[in-house]
Amino acid sequence: MESDQKIIRQSKWMWENCLPHISLDCVVFGFHDNQLKVLLLKMEATQKWLLPGGFVLKNEHLQDAAHRVLFERTGAERIYLQEFGVFGSLNRSEGFFESYPDDLWYKQRFISAGFYALVDYTAVNVTPDEYSDTCQWSNIDDLPELAMDHQLIYDNALAILRQQLSHKPIGLNLLPERFTISELQKLYETILGRSLNRGNFYRRIMRFGILVKQEDPRKGGAHKAPYLYSFDPLKYQESLQGLDW
Amino acid sequence: MESDQKIIRQSKWMWENCLPHISLDCVVFGFHDNQLKVLLLKMEATQKWLLPGGFVLKNEHLQDAAHRVLFERTGAERIYLQEFGVFGSLNRSEGFFESYPDDLWYKQRFISAGFYALVDYTAVNVTPDEYSDTCQWSNIDDLPELAMDHQLIYDNALAILRQQLSHKPIGLNLLPERFTISELQKLYETILGRSLNRGNFYRRIMRFGILVKQEDPRKGGAHKAPYLYSFDPLKYQESLQGLDW
Repeated sequence: MESDQKIIRQSKWMWENCLPHISLDCVVFGFHDNQLKVLLLKMEATQKWLLPGGFVLKNEHLQDAAHRVLFERTGAERIYLQEFGVFGSLNRSEGFFESYPDDLWYKQRFISAGFYALVDYTAVNVTPDEYSDTCQWSNIDDLPELAMDHQLIYDNALAILRQQLSHKPIGLNLLPERFTISELQKLYETILGRSLNRGNFYRRIMRFGILVKQEDPRKGGAHKAPYLYSFDPLKYQESLQGLDW
Repeated sequence: MESDQKIIRQSKWMWENCLPHISLDCVVFGFHDNQLKVLLLKMEATQKWLLPGGFVLKNEHLQDAAHRVLFERTGAERIYLQEFGVFGSLNRSEGFFESYPDDLWYKQRFISAGFYALVDYTAVNVTPDEYSDTCQWSNIDDLPELAMDHQLIYDNALAILRQQLSHKPIGLNLLPERFTISELQKLYETILGRSLNRGNFYRRIMRFGILVKQEDPRKGGAHKAPYLYSFDPLKYQESLQGLDW
């Protein structure tokens, strides 16, 4: 197959330029209008679904490699990217390329660093990689079967994203510049997959100290106009470092 | 030097048995009687201080390698060990063995997975590794200079341990089987390095739902006997998976 030839050609380039045994996988969550999706690729050669990922160049920092992969797939730069776990079990990916020559780059044992990002999926342009014919957003309630251990990596990312909601802020780049508390609550509810008590949400979100109340409420609408808020960029960045006791 | 010869001999064994480019470093916090310490090694060849670490055998899961390293240094088994970050910058360790032959195992670029553990330091036996003449607990307020990027790894581990106090339980294996809320609060205060409000602490710790109140208060002492608590092992394990909104 033509796609097999491509993998074998790429393999040679990888051995020359990349750090063996190390890979990275990105769980890119996309949010827009109260929908949460995840970015997936379909491999040309096997027609299996995978998370976008890549390798680390010999002269490249690991963190830069993750940003490069994210940029290559989405065009998005300066996106908050969080390393959330290392996947280092035996046989997590080695068997996937069974039918290929033994010296194929992809047949080695890889220990993979997982990164997650959260973007507004209408604000980025997704692009397949060189092995894939499809790169698309899948609704998280209706994912196709993922190959290798990518379901585990995805499950971990979602669990950690949900945990981190309780002690790290979220919402920058995902909400309009000015938003209501109710819009912010919907973002949290979409990520958590369940509804939250309005009063509890208000108290907990205010504890972060990252919101700036705007002078003028939103205009129009039949009900009492709700107050608008924006993020305080400095306090938001500080809070990303983690809230403690 | 004899210790140099040992490193060169070990290097050959590493190339045969371990996965290149991958290492792991363990930040082992020791707690006892309201003191927090960290386990350090002093290398024989360079007399520099390092965190205990190791490599991954070709046929070994990454997580098992971390447990093996912890067991080799402390004799402790079944200790809660948390992967907390990957350290993958260029030149984080490569320069450390400058004066050695280029094919030395330790001179390659390593991407290192960081694990932390928290043990009762009076309950374990520390043992130096094959390159070190000293393995000892250092008080966290008075650490020696650490080589490579091990200060960064340590700083990250402490920051993450402190963050995780707010959403994961802590204390099993560190406190007596039955303890007072005040003893548990002291553990938190020692790790955080500052005092906490008693009422706030009580409310937050009760939210975890991991404590079982004992029928009989502690006997003896001049004051009103405080209630004793123990951990509910099942709820403790569940809560380790993370508390959310």
